[in-house]
Amino acid sequence: MVHGKEFTIQTKGYSDIKDITGEVRHIIEDSKISEGIVTVHAVGSTASISTTEFEPALNADFRDQIEKFIPGSLHTRHSETWGDDNGFSHLRATFMGPSMTVPVSGGAPVLGTWQQIIVIDHDNRPRSRRVFVQVMGE
Amino acid sequence: MVHGKEFTIQTKGYSDIKDITGEVRHIIEDSKISEGIVTVHAVGSTASISTTEFEPALNADFRDQIEKFIPGSLHTRHSETWGDDNGFSHLRATFMGPSMTVPVSGGAPVLGTWQQIIVIDHDNRPRSRRVFVQVMGE
Amino acid sequence: MVHGKEFTIQTKGYSDIKDITGEVRHIIEDSKISEGIVTVHAVGSTASISTTEFEPALNADFRDQIEKFIPGSLHTRHSETWGDDNGFSHLRATFMGPSMTVPVSGGAPVLGTWQQIIVIDHDNRPRSRRVFVQVMGE
Repeated sequence: MVHGKEFTIQTKGYSDIKDITGEVRHIIEDSKISEGIVTVHAVGSTASISTTEFEPALNADFRDQIEKFIPGSLHTRHSETWGDDNGFSHLRATFMGPSMTVPVSGGAPVLGTWQQIIVIDHDNRPRSRRVFVQVMGE
Repeated sequence: MVHGKEFTIQTKGYSDIKDITGEVRHIIEDSKISEGIVTVHAVGSTASISTTEFEPALNADFRDQIEKFIPGSLHTRHSETWGDDNGFSHLRATFMGPSMTVPVSGGAPVLGTWQQIIVIDHDNRPRSRRVFVQVMGE
Repeated sequence: MVHGKEFTIQTKGYSDIKDITGEVRHIIEDSKISEGIVTVHAVGSTASISTTEFEPALNADFRDQIEKFIPGSLHTRHSETWGDDNGFSHLRATFMGPSMTVPVSGGAPVLGTWQQIIVIDHDNRPRSRRVFVQVMGE
């Protein structure tokens, strides 16, 4: 069985972190799939999917850290060539990857107590970000 | 067909690297699945799954490199707020991601000769780390 | 249904980036699978799979950035021990991960307009790189 659903979420960009665990749980419930996997995918080349303990202090730490790694002020050939000023967003997204697949068991994603599924939008402006969730199993 | 199994592995924390290729191979064999995929997932928000050439010199290089990237001594709002001193562990885990999916062919994971499946435990203490392995296919 | 295919692609190494979206699309078309997922996996421990807006300026930016993160000149115990001088290649690959899974819908991978699937070969020499693509669904 395969059950897919796309939703959009409003983000502020600049590696804004949004907790989408609830949305993913609901899509798995709608699928009636008990055992399998769920693939969570950020559509576009400036966002990433991962997990974290979703709480404000750690979210701020993460944004600090990625700003040290690939600064928003980074001069890039991409921004110079295309004038869209989001070269840093693309680099952050390619490093982290756009997708994640997590086991589903007992009709729910297999997660730790303090582990939430997140989309991180690296773009340099607020966006309506598309997330596609594909559930497979039986 | 779907076949899932969770196991635990003892780690030392601080990005301790454990080779779990044998465990993953055995679970695939038990599943009787010949062609498909295997999702390997570290349960919790302070560990990662990847592949490496598993040998002591490279493992030490990896720990050096991640210590340069996100030091264990990093001051974080998370540690300050919650007093658990493992903000750096969370940041390492979110950057690398908790999961990996690898093709299965001929009843085995598709890997290079020098490519082993690893769990990296970034937490700041020894742990009994849960790993969930989901095999899907036919 | 499961449909797998391996192909090889010539790379220059040193985090050379190749667009493999066309190959992945063709394998999905050959599979006759309309809804499901595709797992794209670089066989070996010195390459990664991700997505990017594939264009020359951004590709050069990416190589600059990964060179700052883990320089090709990095002294590693791995290179010292084994004499193959590609410790940096392994470290880059383990950080980024060897695999990616993307939803398939309407017989095509779910991607943004400016989002291409890429293999990044981090090794320190030209290689014929194996990529295994596994399509699953219905």
